[in-house]
Amino acid sequence: MTATVSFIVPVQEELRAVEALMRSQADGYHPDLRAAMELLISAGGKRIRPALTILTGKMLGAPINELVLLATAIELLHTATLVHDDLIDGSLLRRGMPTLNSRWAPGATVLTGDFVFARAAKLAAETESVPVIKLFSHTLTVIVNGEIVQMLGSRCQADHENYLERIYAKTASLFETSAKAAALISNADESTVENLRCFGHEIGMAFQILDDILDYAGNQNTVGKPIGSDLRQGIVTLPALIYADTHLNDPYAQALREGRCLNDEEITYLIDSIYASDAIRLSYREAVAYVERGLKSLRKIAPSPERYSLEELANYIIEREF
Amino acid sequence: MTATVSFIVPVQEELRAVEALMRSQADGYHPDLRAAMELLISAGGKRIRPALTILTGKMLGAPINELVLLATAIELLHTATLVHDDLIDGSLLRRGMPTLNSRWAPGATVLTGDFVFARAAKLAAETESVPVIKLFSHTLTVIVNGEIVQMLGSRCQADHENYLERIYAKTASLFETSAKAAALISNADESTVENLRCFGHEIGMAFQILDDILDYAGNQNTVGKPIGSDLRQGIVTLPALIYADTHLNDPYAQALREGRCLNDEEITYLIDSIYASDAIRLSYREAVAYVERGLKSLRKIAPSPERYSLEELANYIIEREF
Repeated sequence: MTATVSFIVPVQEELRAVEALMRSQADGYHPDLRAAMELLISAGGKRIRPALTILTGKMLGAPINELVLLATAIELLHTATLVHDDLIDGSLLRRGMPTLNSRWAPGATVLTGDFVFARAAKLAAETESVPVIKLFSHTLTVIVNGEIVQMLGSRCQADHENYLERIYAKTASLFETSAKAAALISNADESTVENLRCFGHEIGMAFQILDDILDYAGNQNTVGKPIGSDLRQGIVTLPALIYADTHLNDPYAQALREGRCLNDEEITYLIDSIYASDAIRLSYREAVAYVERGLKSLRKIAPSPERYSLEELANYIIEREF
Repeated sequence: MTATVSFIVPVQEELRAVEALMRSQADGYHPDLRAAMELLISAGGKRIRPALTILTGKMLGAPINELVLLATAIELLHTATLVHDDLIDGSLLRRGMPTLNSRWAPGATVLTGDFVFARAAKLAAETESVPVIKLFSHTLTVIVNGEIVQMLGSRCQADHENYLERIYAKTASLFETSAKAAALISNADESTVENLRCFGHEIGMAFQILDDILDYAGNQNTVGKPIGSDLRQGIVTLPALIYADTHLNDPYAQALREGRCLNDEEITYLIDSIYASDAIRLSYREAVAYVERGLKSLRKIAPSPERYSLEELANYIIEREF
């Protein structure tokens, strides 16, 4: 499948403004912070969260300058969490680009992450919307708590409910906030805010499920990690969960169900079995179902060019790099 | 001299509420976060920043519940920066208590700091005062940038202006915010806000100068670090600056003026010379001058029991552990 990124076109100008605002956040501070910010910006992906925020806000008539502030705050919050994540995981590459910790000392990387958090908080405050600022700090709490749960939680645990909580904290919470905060600064009515919160939530869940599928079935060059790296770290994602539930006679699936960790050889065999099974297709079906629920929620809003772009964005999420 | 902490008495109840609110910030999140929060609270000092906030706000008639929110946000912001600082410096003790990083893995310590930042931001948002929230995120930026400047900046540099910038970023900025934010949520007029900002700034500068004096002249058991540890790390503080300016024939003072680093033996000799010189007394005189300027600003506010307590707080800053 070829990914379509046509949803970016109508917000290209705003996304350029987001990158310019990200870049300017280090102005007047230590010159190395500017270099760090450049590195982080150049490693940036499709800016899907800012696109979600800006399309939602434009659809609902929010002022563009406030949307750019909000979208930049969200992308910086996301960036700051990645800076600390990559440091903690010791990752040297992200999206094929060197991570900050691959070049900087740990202490400087911790502080740069903190600086990016501080700038995210500053831009969120500049929206002058107390509900948006509250939502923003709550989302940071959810994301960080999720990372702590994943770090300190039990390994090799196949638990569907726990999986959904994890992907909500890791990914869907910020997608939800990207859409909901845009609706809030548009002064949309309560049901519109709720419909967009739901849209953001559902496509965020789908986004992480796709990431988890790509960990098994993605192009290694694009994903940039060995196949099955989650399971090798003891992280049981949807394909493994579905495989465990549907292969009752496989002793390794049995081990997953019982929360027993396997050795490297067994893990490799299990990863191959999951990849060859229909667990990938069934996981994909679950991601599609999330997007469909999201679109159902979105389509309660009157049609507009921005709504169509948001539909494209939702579909892109399950079509990318697959 | 014996330190007087009588300024704590009129805000004891509020400070207990601050600690209870700090403690509750981990409720509903990963249980280890609660344990971390307990450790951080039990290692807490005199809560001088929350006392400053609460006394200022009570003096100006702010609602107590908002003051407790604000004071807790400020203490959590301070705590979060200490968590990351101790990790970066590899410090195992703070105020005689084990640091978080002495017990936890680096990754968990980074994330716990992030969690405490998130909770600080959440409580600041709950004051619902946009100017306070903006000030708060700006202060975090100043503190973190200051840490980066100190980490990446040149060592062994004797520069008075740079010293004042450093102690502002490190300490005075948060004292300034503790007093100014309390004035802002009290809806005080502009000149009152400015007088209290100035009071917070001046006593914050004095606080850090005293810390820097104690690094040379403090009781080692109380300070918990070897004498002259700043200079051993290449950090030139006020006593060394004054010594360099007033001992033109000492070759080591000359090295300081030229920004040349010395070897361990030379540093030890220099530290002894600084301690034996009148640089300590002259530094102390500078701290006293800051407090006097702060008190002059404070005394533009009408007298009240809280104002007297703030005067005691200001005097405590230059009388503690000396």
